Amino acid sequence: MPSSRKTFELPFAKVDLHRNLRRHFPEVIYAKGKSSAQVVAIAQALKRNGQPVLITKVSAVVAKLVSRQLPWLTYFPQAGILAGPIQRGKGRRGRASRKTGEVLVVTAGTGDIPVAEEAAVTAQWMGQPVGRLFDVGVAGLHRVLKNQRRIRKARVVVVVAGMDGVLPSVISGLTPCPVVAVPTSVGYGASFRGVAPLLTMLNSCSPGVAVVNIDNGFGAGYLAALIAGNHR
Amino acid sequence: MPSSRKTFELPFAKVDLHRNLRRHFPEVIYAKGKSSAQVVAIAQALKRNGQPVLITKVSAVVAKLVSRQLPWLTYFPQAGILAGPIQRGKGRRGRASRKTGEVLVVTAGTGDIPVAEEAAVTAQWMGQPVGRLFDVGVAGLHRVLKNQRRIRKARVVVVVAGMDGVLPSVISGLTPCPVVAVPTSVGYGASFRGVAPLLTMLNSCSPGVAVVNIDNGFGAGYLAALIAGNHR
Amino acid sequence: MPSSRKTFELPFAKVDLHRNLRRHFPEVIYAKGKSSAQVVAIAQALKRNGQPVLITKVSAVVAKLVSRQLPWLTYFPQAGILAGPIQRGKGRRGRASRKTGEVLVVTAGTGDIPVAEEAAVTAQWMGQPVGRLFDVGVAGLHRVLKNQRRIRKARVVVVVAGMDGVLPSVISGLTPCPVVAVPTSVGYGASFRGVAPLLTMLNSCSPGVAVVNIDNGFGAGYLAALIAGNHR
Amino acid sequence: MPSSRKTFELPFAKVDLHRNLRRHFPEVIYAKGKSSAQVVAIAQALKRNGQPVLITKVSAVVAKLVSRQLPWLTYFPQAGILAGPIQRGKGRRGRASRKTGEVLVVTAGTGDIPVAEEAAVTAQWMGQPVGRLFDVGVAGLHRVLKNQRRIRKARVVVVVAGMDGVLPSVISGLTPCPVVAVPTSVGYGASFRGVAPLLTMLNSCSPGVAVVNIDNGFGAGYLAALIAGNHR
Amino acid sequence: MPSSRKTFELPFAKVDLHRNLRRHFPEVIYAKGKSSAQVVAIAQALKRNGQPVLITKVSAVVAKLVSRQLPWLTYFPQAGILAGPIQRGKGRRGRASRKTGEVLVVTAGTGDIPVAEEAAVTAQWMGQPVGRLFDVGVAGLHRVLKNQRRIRKARVVVVVAGMDGVLPSVISGLTPCPVVAVPTSVGYGASFRGVAPLLTMLNSCSPGVAVVNIDNGFGAGYLAALIAGNHR
Amino acid sequence: MPSSRKTFELPFAKVDLHRNLRRHFPEVIYAKGKSSAQVVAIAQALKRNGQPVLITKVSAVVAKLVSRQLPWLTYFPQAGILAGPIQRGKGRRGRASRKTGEVLVVTAGTGDIPVAEEAAVTAQWMGQPVGRLFDVGVAGLHRVLKNQRRIRKARVVVVVAGMDGVLPSVISGLTPCPVVAVPTSVGYGASFRGVAPLLTMLNSCSPGVAVVNIDNGFGAGYLAALIAGNHR
Amino acid sequence: MPSSRKTFELPFAKVDLHRNLRRHFPEVIYAKGKSSAQVVAIAQALKRNGQPVLITKVSAVVAKLVSRQLPWLTYFPQAGILAGPIQRGKGRRGRASRKTGEVLVVTAGTGDIPVAEEAAVTAQWMGQPVGRLFDVGVAGLHRVLKNQRRIRKARVVVVVAGMDGVLPSVISGLTPCPVVAVPTSVGYGASFRGVAPLLTMLNSCSPGVAVVNIDNGFGAGYLAALIAGNHR
Amino acid sequence: MPSSRKTFELPFAKVDLHRNLRRHFPEVIYAKGKSSAQVVAIAQALKRNGQPVLITKVSAVVAKLVSRQLPWLTYFPQAGILAGPIQRGKGRRGRASRKTGEVLVVTAGTGDIPVAEEAAVTAQWMGQPVGRLFDVGVAGLHRVLKNQRRIRKARVVVVVAGMDGVLPSVISGLTPCPVVAVPTSVGYGASFRGVAPLLTMLNSCSPGVAVVNIDNGFGAGYLAALIAGNHR
Repeated sequence: MPSSRKTFELPFAKVDLHRNLRRHFPEVIYAKGKSSAQVVAIAQALKRNGQPVLITKVSAVVAKLVSRQLPWLTYFPQAGILAGPIQRGKGRRGRASRKTGEVLVVTAGTGDIPVAEEAAVTAQWMGQPVGRLFDVGVAGLHRVLKNQRRIRKARVVVVVAGMDGVLPSVISGLTPCPVVAVPTSVGYGASFRGVAPLLTMLNSCSPGVAVVNIDNGFGAGYLAALIAGNHR
Repeated sequence: MPSSRKTFELPFAKVDLHRNLRRHFPEVIYAKGKSSAQVVAIAQALKRNGQPVLITKVSAVVAKLVSRQLPWLTYFPQAGILAGPIQRGKGRRGRASRKTGEVLVVTAGTGDIPVAEEAAVTAQWMGQPVGRLFDVGVAGLHRVLKNQRRIRKARVVVVVAGMDGVLPSVISGLTPCPVVAVPTSVGYGASFRGVAPLLTMLNSCSPGVAVVNIDNGFGAGYLAALIAGNHR
Repeated sequence: MPSSRKTFELPFAKVDLHRNLRRHFPEVIYAKGKSSAQVVAIAQALKRNGQPVLITKVSAVVAKLVSRQLPWLTYFPQAGILAGPIQRGKGRRGRASRKTGEVLVVTAGTGDIPVAEEAAVTAQWMGQPVGRLFDVGVAGLHRVLKNQRRIRKARVVVVVAGMDGVLPSVISGLTPCPVVAVPTSVGYGASFRGVAPLLTMLNSCSPGVAVVNIDNGFGAGYLAALIAGNHR
Repeated sequence: MPSSRKTFELPFAKVDLHRNLRRHFPEVIYAKGKSSAQVVAIAQALKRNGQPVLITKVSAVVAKLVSRQLPWLTYFPQAGILAGPIQRGKGRRGRASRKTGEVLVVTAGTGDIPVAEEAAVTAQWMGQPVGRLFDVGVAGLHRVLKNQRRIRKARVVVVVAGMDGVLPSVISGLTPCPVVAVPTSVGYGASFRGVAPLLTMLNSCSPGVAVVNIDNGFGAGYLAALIAGNHR
Repeated sequence: MPSSRKTFELPFAKVDLHRNLRRHFPEVIYAKGKSSAQVVAIAQALKRNGQPVLITKVSAVVAKLVSRQLPWLTYFPQAGILAGPIQRGKGRRGRASRKTGEVLVVTAGTGDIPVAEEAAVTAQWMGQPVGRLFDVGVAGLHRVLKNQRRIRKARVVVVVAGMDGVLPSVISGLTPCPVVAVPTSVGYGASFRGVAPLLTMLNSCSPGVAVVNIDNGFGAGYLAALIAGNHR
Repeated sequence: MPSSRKTFELPFAKVDLHRNLRRHFPEVIYAKGKSSAQVVAIAQALKRNGQPVLITKVSAVVAKLVSRQLPWLTYFPQAGILAGPIQRGKGRRGRASRKTGEVLVVTAGTGDIPVAEEAAVTAQWMGQPVGRLFDVGVAGLHRVLKNQRRIRKARVVVVVAGMDGVLPSVISGLTPCPVVAVPTSVGYGASFRGVAPLLTMLNSCSPGVAVVNIDNGFGAGYLAALIAGNHR
Repeated sequence: MPSSRKTFELPFAKVDLHRNLRRHFPEVIYAKGKSSAQVVAIAQALKRNGQPVLITKVSAVVAKLVSRQLPWLTYFPQAGILAGPIQRGKGRRGRASRKTGEVLVVTAGTGDIPVAEEAAVTAQWMGQPVGRLFDVGVAGLHRVLKNQRRIRKARVVVVVAGMDGVLPSVISGLTPCPVVAVPTSVGYGASFRGVAPLLTMLNSCSPGVAVVNIDNGFGAGYLAALIAGNHR
Repeated sequence: MPSSRKTFELPFAKVDLHRNLRRHFPEVIYAKGKSSAQVVAIAQALKRNGQPVLITKVSAVVAKLVSRQLPWLTYFPQAGILAGPIQRGKGRRGRASRKTGEVLVVTAGTGDIPVAEEAAVTAQWMGQPVGRLFDVGVAGLHRVLKNQRRIRKARVVVVVAGMDGVLPSVISGLTPCPVVAVPTSVGYGASFRGVAPLLTMLNSCSPGVAVVNIDNGFGAGYLAALIAGNHR
């Protein structure tokens, strides 16, 4: 880390430059509720201090405005992410990881894909190899069962599901690795914008399930990459 | 129905003698909150009017007191039910049913068995053949999968589950018949005494799931028997 | 089923071709949150594999776009459904059913009609004869009572109601057949977008009531058709 | 009112002696959470100031202790009430009412009777003629319908119900008088200790329903007597 | 009532013509969720059968469309009501009432006025004299206290309040008449769209408070008029 | 206070002129839900009676309309406040305060700034010196720790935070002064529009934390100024 | 503070010896869930380091066991508190306060007294003069109004109330000082163990109300003493 | 694994013998709600099939009964666990792990220790080195800060906290490793038996926090051991 300062002060933000040292990953910019000017200013502060940049919850409109000033960022439209160069397999001690297993991102339905992509792009940016397995909800159980091998070989599985939120329990029962479960607000009625799958996942009868906030694809990807890189 | 009266009036209850005619099954006595004297009085009123008797939520203590006066009742301790003679396969039109499929009662765990037994004894008393398949939660999916044939052949499956309430979705995906899902209050923490599995079941991604109240084994058995006997 | 494949893989969906065999009805397409191009692709995959098509939650705009490419689909605007040819009374064993009773769809108010139509069209598409009885809420009880005969003769009654959700309890008390209760989010204030009628229905003092998710007309129609066709 | 003081001060209570003048009925003593010595002291303060006495939520044990010191009180065990002499039909202006209609107290089930009795004894103590109609839930609708005449002739109907809380809507639809609806915590599961019937009653599709707190028999009886005596 | 028919059947509604006879007031039309054509058709059915007409939740746009075809209706924009001629003080037995006290409609704030106006116009249409007292919340208690005389002389007080919902308890403590409390969804944060004032009102420490649904100005006005006219 | 009147009556509002005397601060105008004409009328009534003016929840559009007629008001766009001249350090007895410590307004994130500004401007208008410390959430704890001295020297700290709402507990543990905690609705998922941080703050393991409503910047600023000025 | 250590380590607790310096008041012992041996050990650690001792939530049984070993503690049974010597009016800078106003502790009912006493004893132990005003709920508003002078002269008012939680709003409207509002779980039904008064208090229409957790008498007393002592 | 059977069938349980192979850890016995005879039978089935045994939620009474028959089990009273021999550092591929970091179990308070011990004993039994750091809540932040080194060196940190649930956010901000957060039901009032800390943890502003169910010490320990052993 080239900078010796711990904080870069802007009128509306105190950028945590020390975080990269303390946590092995830098502060991430949450774009929602910030103007594109604010987003640009924080990204530049990180860049200038030699830190990698990840910006989440970026709409297409904001992405365009920000990219014009920061052309070194890549936009992932489904994930709603603007990212600087991918990290090189950064693991526990900040060294490159031996790639011995993937972060497998799974969804129950088609509507869960945006949250899943946010998780996948985040984990990739953090240097982990990522696989995708979409639309394998338990209404057609054979879709999961025929992918058992891959599920068992993953280092971490991120499972994204709304409504009944059943899939993480089923997948956790099939694999020795930890499962990161992400409830989504996709659905209607008694799913109560994600409360139903959140509760299902917290109550999973299969141990080894880590739960994150509703629609928190970024948090799931971050946690999965942390777990996957936790080996040196 | 020997009685022409529609209602038998007691100081604390108006027994609905007409129900047997109207619904093909008589009023059922919910023992909780009633004294054993009250339970006996209502049971006698039904008996005297030629109606079958089923009493639910009967503790061992109350069962003993009531049985002393009504020795023609059988006690099912796990189900907490006192029942008169089993009905003869009463179906839609009040005639005996052709026994072409069973009501299969399934539980996710051992703790769900009392609610499941309440469902099973109720459906049996209503004249349906009943099968049992206990402790086949999805943490060990092979326990469900190796019973697939039986699940597919059932006329109705009653699935009883607490905590994550995942099992009805999985079973419904495997069978052409309707599934009656019963959430239980077994568990702790964010199961919120059955709210979590209730929501899971209401949000099932697999269509064909009918939900009843938390711990409502009687209601599930009744509904299952109604569906199973719905064919003449 | 002409296809021997179990799953048809698209980039955004794994179509469950096996479901028709396993459950006697094919996978149904939930249009909300899918682009019309995605809807068309899934519908074509089903069609090409000889499977019937039903698409739910289709707005008028999407219906127009999809119909242009798939002119063999009929649009039911109140139900928000695009459907291929109606199934021929498919019952339990996949054979045509003897039409000995209708699926009667009832609403408490005028505002409940769209959900009721979704149920009705779904049950019809699954091969069941369907009747309709709208706006018979208990504030004018005589409207229910004068239809008692019809209610008693139905094979299954689907009752759709918002706000107090009282109607399923009343109708269930009058008929020997199962009642499928659908709470709707119609209303305001302490109905909490359907929570109030949902709880009313789960607590029904009259046994034989099956509850489905808030506004889940499709699920109610599917369940009702399953129950009605459950007799061979 | 013999006393000119507005408040009688005890170390643990400030007895509102002015209330009888202001509201035509005196302060009522809620026994729960008070010692029997405290109850006796407040009752004596009221008595000494020439005010009628009503004590609610009195267990059998407390009733015995208090009655020993205040033998002029009558105990109503089902209602859990200790009451001084019944008021003489006190209406709006404090004068005796013409008895032209009764306060009719109705319950859906047997378990609702204690709350109903609290309402009935309260209304009687406030000088209103009271009728009772217990266990007429809508699962056997004929029990309500055959009492239609009486329901239509009442001045106010208090309807006490737990679980689905359906009865007030049905009764309100049959009568021109106001209905006071009391949800009870009787039941289990998704009745959530009275929340379900409370919501049902607040959402009643039939106008003219006044709702009070869960298990609040006293409040219902008080409100009903106020409405019934509101005519001079 | 000129019509002998009990129900007038439209494709989307069964108009309850019998209600005027049974309840002394006709069916009221809830405009929300109905097309203006539907509203017109139901209003005409009532008119043709000699029944008074009240239409609630009418936006300015719908009011204009409906009024064009039914010019005999008057629009009350703040109340969102279209009403036919005011009833002549119809009381308990359908006869004109002696006007011995008013229905006093009170609000805590300025934002509660639309709901209050809905109550006021409804009660007026039902033949009761109505008074208004707006913006007298307890933050400035003197505003209530200086109106004590009027509050004490009212026949019924309707109190409309959001946020803390404190006013009904305070007013009920000052008057011998019943108080109808209406929580409103006005406000933000932990008022949870009216849940906070709803709970406050249900828990009122002052007996004699009748609660109706959140924002249910119509129900409050109807109940108040029923209570006020309950004296012959 | 030049006016001897206690209330100024407008058709839609009863302005509490007495409040300034009673509480040392005048009635504050909540603009949301009022027309700009209404806002102007109330502000003029206060001004004419010699009272200071503060208007909250003022959008840019309304601010423009109101300012045109009341040019003596200053608009604070981030706070959404229109304010008359700042009060001179009014403390407990209405006299100017000795400025011995500031009201320090702190936020966890950038998105919490509008609520924080509402608090800051309110406290300033009430005559207190105000400091600001924004974006010091505990994910980068050093940002709080390096400001410890300032936090310990403040007279009151207002802490504004959404999502986990963790900051008030941490800051309260570092300072001898009271902390006013304001949960914000900023965020998504299981923050449930501010419920999560509200609960965190109510359960603070560090005593000395006063909680106000979600997003209630004005209330926090008012309470902080009251506490800070509470010293004469 | 005689000790230079910041923490005293026990196997089950890390006693925060530094708190007295940092916050001007020492760590307080929460007895619930600790054995009396654990309570004694922590109290001795504080004493030995020259720190004052306060122990809350102490049942009569635990009080007896602890007092036997620590006879220098006084037990306040209604408050459930064991306290060492009262602090000498410790204010903001740790110096004795000028006693220019009391902390006035008010309850709405008799059942709220234990929580109020916990607040009162805590504030007294922290060196503030404390007054008490119990059972002045708004059902008899004159009880509050005749104590207006005292309420207006207090430095802080702590208001303890259950059920409707109305009293803090009313009292806050009468006084220039801050109000600390404490909801209690006293009551039944829709008070939901204190949720209803908690919401009422958070939504208070009168600014200047600080809310603490349900039944948190200690926290209220601590906050009140902090505010009252905040003046040097 | 010596047994080739996948399931061992008992009348009340289907023991999943295959799990050890599939997930690298065997089925764990949840004792609550099972008789000690049932617990013994299942433990024997596992033992006989060469599988390690862990029994959770074991009260002292049950522990005594079970130990008498299964003397090879060790009882951990604070954790409520009966365990067979500790596993030898089993990691991802079932081989012994290199012990390069500990699972550090941290609590905010003394009352959280039982849940923390359940986590610690579970992780130890799964072969991981475990450290403990109890009673370091943020009210005395220096207790955390002086342990920063240890926190940063851990492989996984399990943080157990009730009430405000603030500690996991603070600790996560200090360490590069994943944090497993366990909310506890310890506390009162608005902690709602663990809901408040659960929401705090789900909303953590610091990424890398995995949440498990309320009081789920076992689940946390299992997940932590899975993550820690995830490196071969």
